[in-house]
Amino acid sequence: IYRPREDGLEPHHGHRPPLTHEIAQLSATLEGQSVSLGGWIFSQRRASASLHFFTLRDTSASVQLVCKDSEISQKLMDFPLESVVSIQGIVRARKQKAKAGPSSATLSTADEVEVEVTGCILLNAADPLPFYASRQEMASEEIRAEHRYLDLRRSELAANLKLRSKVAHIIRCHLHDQKFDEVETPVLLNSSPEGAREFVVPTRTLKPSQIPNDTSLQPTFYALQQSPQQPKQLLIASGATSRYFQIARCFRDEDGRKDRQPEFTQVDLEMGFVEGTGEQGESWECSEFRTLLIRERLGNELDTWSMGGQQVKQVVEGLIRKIWKEIKGIELGEFRCMPYQVAMDVYGSDKPDTRFEMFTLPLGYYPDLSDADLDKVLLDQSQYTVEWMITRSEHAKYLNMDDLRNDHVQAIHIREDNVKSWHTESPFTQKLGLTMTGDGAVTGGGVQPGDIIWLAQRKKVAEGGWTQLGRLRVQMLDELVRQGALKLSDQPNFLWITQFPLFTRADEDKAFLSKGRWASTHHPFTAPMFEDLEDLKGGNVEKVRGQHYDLVLDGQEIGGGSVRIHDANLQEYVMRDVLKLEQDEIARFSHLLQALRFGAPPHGGMALGLDRLVAILCGAKSIREVIAFPKTQAGSDPVFKSPSVVAADVLRDYGLESRKRS
Amino acid sequence: IYRPREDGLEPHHGHRPPLTHEIAQLSATLEGQSVSLGGWIFSQRRASASLHFFTLRDTSASVQLVCKDSEISQKLMDFPLESVVSIQGIVRARKQKAKAGPSSATLSTADEVEVEVTGCILLNAADPLPFYASRQEMASEEIRAEHRYLDLRRSELAANLKLRSKVAHIIRCHLHDQKFDEVETPVLLNSSPEGAREFVVPTRTLKPSQIPNDTSLQPTFYALQQSPQQPKQLLIASGATSRYFQIARCFRDEDGRKDRQPEFTQVDLEMGFVEGTGEQGESWECSEFRTLLIRERLGNELDTWSMGGQQVKQVVEGLIRKIWKEIKGIELGEFRCMPYQVAMDVYGSDKPDTRFEMFTLPLGYYPDLSDADLDKVLLDQSQYTVEWMITRSEHAKYLNMDDLRNDHVQAIHIREDNVKSWHTESPFTQKLGLTMTGDGAVTGGGVQPGDIIWLAQRKKVAEGGWTQLGRLRVQMLDELVRQGALKLSDQPNFLWITQFPLFTRADEDKAFLSKGRWASTHHPFTAPMFEDLEDLKGGNVEKVRGQHYDLVLDGQEIGGGSVRIHDANLQEYVMRDVLKLEQDEIARFSHLLQALRFGAPPHGGMALGLDRLVAILCGAKSIREVIAFPKTQAGSDPVFKSPSVVAADVLRDYGLESRKRS
Repeated sequence: IYRPREDGLEPHHGHRPPLTHEIAQLSATLEGQSVSLGGWIFSQRRASASLHFFTLRDTSASVQLVCKDSEISQKLMDFPLESVVSIQGIVRARKQKAKAGPSSATLSTADEVEVEVTGCILLNAADPLPFYASRQEMASEEIRAEHRYLDLRRSELAANLKLRSKVAHIIRCHLHDQKFDEVETPVLLNSSPEGAREFVVPTRTLKPSQIPNDTSLQPTFYALQQSPQQPKQLLIASGATSRYFQIARCFRDEDGRKDRQPEFTQVDLEMGFVEGTGEQGESWECSEFRTLLIRERLGNELDTWSMGGQQVKQVVEGLIRKIWKEIKGIELGEFRCMPYQVAMDVYGSDKPDTRFEMFTLPLGYYPDLSDADLDKVLLDQSQYTVEWMITRSEHAKYLNMDDLRNDHVQAIHIREDNVKSWHTESPFTQKLGLTMTGDGAVTGGGVQPGDIIWLAQRKKVAEGGWTQLGRLRVQMLDELVRQGALKLSDQPNFLWITQFPLFTRADEDKAFLSKGRWASTHHPFTAPMFEDLEDLKGGNVEKVRGQHYDLVLDGQEIGGGSVRIHDANLQEYVMRDVLKLEQDEIARFSHLLQALRFGAPPHGGMALGLDRLVAILCGAKSIREVIAFPKTQAGSDPVFKSPSVVAADVLRDYGLESRKRS
Repeated sequence: IYRPREDGLEPHHGHRPPLTHEIAQLSATLEGQSVSLGGWIFSQRRASASLHFFTLRDTSASVQLVCKDSEISQKLMDFPLESVVSIQGIVRARKQKAKAGPSSATLSTADEVEVEVTGCILLNAADPLPFYASRQEMASEEIRAEHRYLDLRRSELAANLKLRSKVAHIIRCHLHDQKFDEVETPVLLNSSPEGAREFVVPTRTLKPSQIPNDTSLQPTFYALQQSPQQPKQLLIASGATSRYFQIARCFRDEDGRKDRQPEFTQVDLEMGFVEGTGEQGESWECSEFRTLLIRERLGNELDTWSMGGQQVKQVVEGLIRKIWKEIKGIELGEFRCMPYQVAMDVYGSDKPDTRFEMFTLPLGYYPDLSDADLDKVLLDQSQYTVEWMITRSEHAKYLNMDDLRNDHVQAIHIREDNVKSWHTESPFTQKLGLTMTGDGAVTGGGVQPGDIIWLAQRKKVAEGGWTQLGRLRVQMLDELVRQGALKLSDQPNFLWITQFPLFTRADEDKAFLSKGRWASTHHPFTAPMFEDLEDLKGGNVEKVRGQHYDLVLDGQEIGGGSVRIHDANLQEYVMRDVLKLEQDEIARFSHLLQALRFGAPPHGGMALGLDRLVAILCGAKSIREVIAFPKTQAGSDPVFKSPSVVAADVLRDYGLESRKRS
């Protein structure tokens, strides 16, 4: 039996006057005109028995309603806040611009006009809300997450979603203009035997058990794509397009990493016939690093893209330029390039924040070293060296040393009496027996009393994403910015990191897969640098750099890509002889190897993280602020209440059951 | 150890001349100019020792290469077909346009010019292919599916993907112009307890068992979205946008239905503040159907959209018009509207192909009935009636009656002697004791010798998607078109079907969910027609029509949508009292009910199937032809070889195991 509402506030059904305007369309030129608006009651105020003021908010803006009709006023006062109404009224120009109303910063107010109400219809009465968008500071994060559809009433969040929509459209328009085709590739892909980081999807398709004489059936699974990497390579190999892109949803079971989501969005692109070398076939040798300290050299000579894939670089730079121009009104300058080893030597990170010059350098670059000291450092046979970093006195005073110090890092306070002897205070440097008779005249080097010098051990040939001081540097910059001691440039600092080592043993994430073998730093399809091809073929694996490039913005990686191996023979060699994959592991790439064998052009591409990119453009602290219905750190969905248990008979259809209770 | 190729056809690495043109850019204005091209060797021909011809194909077009240098010719002859090469040469205008080359119809040829080869570089040699795109008729469907990346070399398929990209972009541009925001909603949603038709995704998040005193943990799951229905309603309820759209990947475990895919793409949109009634609040009553036979009335008076949601109708029509204009160059006329009951009475289908006038009508519309006959038919108390359909003699002769006849359908051949007595030959009509003294003067009615009259029983009030004769009609039209006896209009026939019954007991797909209860014809969020609101509240469930609309094109449903219930009280009444959902079933919609309670505006929307739409635009027989890497009917992926078995320890992480062998 249908039970009407007890409060009598039945929503209107049936015919009603069509809306004539969104609030943002109201202006003084409509003075005297009748309008019909729809929106939410945002505030209610009685000025006198014959004069009431209301604020009406729609998705575009808010406007003041003036009501002199006591009957209508009474109705509007009786409707709970956040109720949805249809308002009929007459536009009146305001003599003075309205003051900023109760709405928050990003929602504009139609401040030239107000609307004199002549009629109102209750479209949907609101129950008391758990929190109100105008006073969101009162609600806990949990309450807001559970009622995300109410939190989205906050104009900041709504504006983020609109900006995201706009950015995605700019990207698509730009890439279509550049003759790219957007092609959808499967989300339901094949699972890998290890199931690493991927989500699997059980199917009702059962396969015969692989156990001899066992006629039972085994469950089978799709896996959700982690990225469209293989499909896009096959697509380029097919020749159906030579310029593919896709804004693709990807899925990774990340175990609650900071500010990651189990589903995320990637701007994915791939191009056929990309170059396989730098324009002059040149690349930059690591042994020439000595003069790195001189900032001019860092800025000029090193800014060469010494790899293939220039076409991808140009497309991505064009795309990023377009976005910053249209969204921020900023014309971006040149994008710098920096080889991985330089980034690790100078900033201790493969995604350096280059907005501030505080360097993490191997000891060989210390400007006060004498020639004899330098020889000692350079001739030291250990695979380790010491990295050092100076915090200048003007910043040192802001630091809480207890927060920064850790087991791997030493801090030496520089006083008048240890400017040239600080190295005797650290076990890292003591053992080298340095004398420090250099004159410290090199730009930017040397320490002064009041400074802090930080020291840590690192491998001479950098590996992984951070050095000890690299991490410390970021932590320190965050702290200095937070305290107002440092202001970083507003101008975005885009930077390409190139010439990564092609293989690594240093990636803990991959260790369980590689079982102590070499692992691909990025993925097994990355092409070696042309200059290192013979090293690769000769088995000098540790020397081989890949044609991989990361795009870094102000210390955040916003994308990465590479030139791919298009030579089936070389690809198989990498899998079999370098990565030591088993035959059945290689067999899982058979479609790719075949596609390379049947006439695949040279190709390369890139993927940009859209969530991160939009978060940066919005100035949002977390990617959750640019996603309509994000999941928590733990991967649960507070609105839709996933994940949840399913019935046993559903599992049975998939050939599955819960593990037996022990 | 690296093993070079035995045939010596090593792919080139290192520097090479950059490409200057795509083949499609070549024209006679480039006469004499040096160009560098990249592509596949499509054909090889020796004219004489000093003259060889080749065809080079890239993703844009193909061109003839002329080679007078015997050394280069020899190399090019030695490269296997479909090898990838870089060609340097000089553009030469052709005196005569080239004849159509070996490439297929949709790949254009640069026929004004040829290129005189001055150099070539082997970028990637091709092994012998399992099949060649130019001779695809020789390969079986299975071989082509397994090597989809080679099948995509067929220019028809490549053109389909490019068209799809273009259509998606037209859609986005149009909707952005109309102030829509594209918002991404979760693919990983919550599973429903029944798990109907959805794919579930196990997580490593385990929940305590719900069995008392049992401390073991139960596996938990996301489900892949079947559509963004609930997220988009929450989004509109939030007011973050009043015009949402998304081109969204959706997932449904369809058990291998004809031409469906487990993942498919939907153009999904939703609008706030849509109307809830027709403009005059009028709707069309089923009891006035008597004169339907008269085509003019079908064409005019019935073409009214008597429901809410006009804003959605306008947006979708604008979108479809735009697509047909830009892709086909066709300006579409008005879109017709037809109530569900009319479609079922006249065409026996809720997605009628209106390009041909062959009607499936209830017996009450038979033009030769006398008034007395009509009374008998109309006063018959049974809930069943008889439907009839005429195949005219010019078509009847093409039909193979054995293919068409079935247990539920009778066919009577009309001869001179049974024109007015055919009804005595069918048990369906015999029992009514008709006399047939009418004069058959009504337009389009009556039978002639040589015709076939088809008869079947149906419910008086139509339910479900087809009547017996409706199915037969489609089968017959297909057959007549196949035999060339009938040519259907080239002009696309768009048709809105409206006023569906809101609830049904006739949907077998849903029967296992509804357990004999009323089920929603579409989904439980569809609003009733305003005119039927009191019937709904009063419990006259079978009389209630929904504000649902399907868009049908030439007999195929290309989309559907509705005005939604925005009144929480009514929504809960529908779930609890009409659909008889249990309390815990209703609880799974609590986020939606809450969102409606906290000030949701009236809203409505629509979803269009992009795969189908593009397939129609391409003239493709199957949606597989417009998907880069489709799955088979059985849901397996012939390229990536999914689904497959995963290791037991992966399952263990999810708290799962294979069902024990019995």
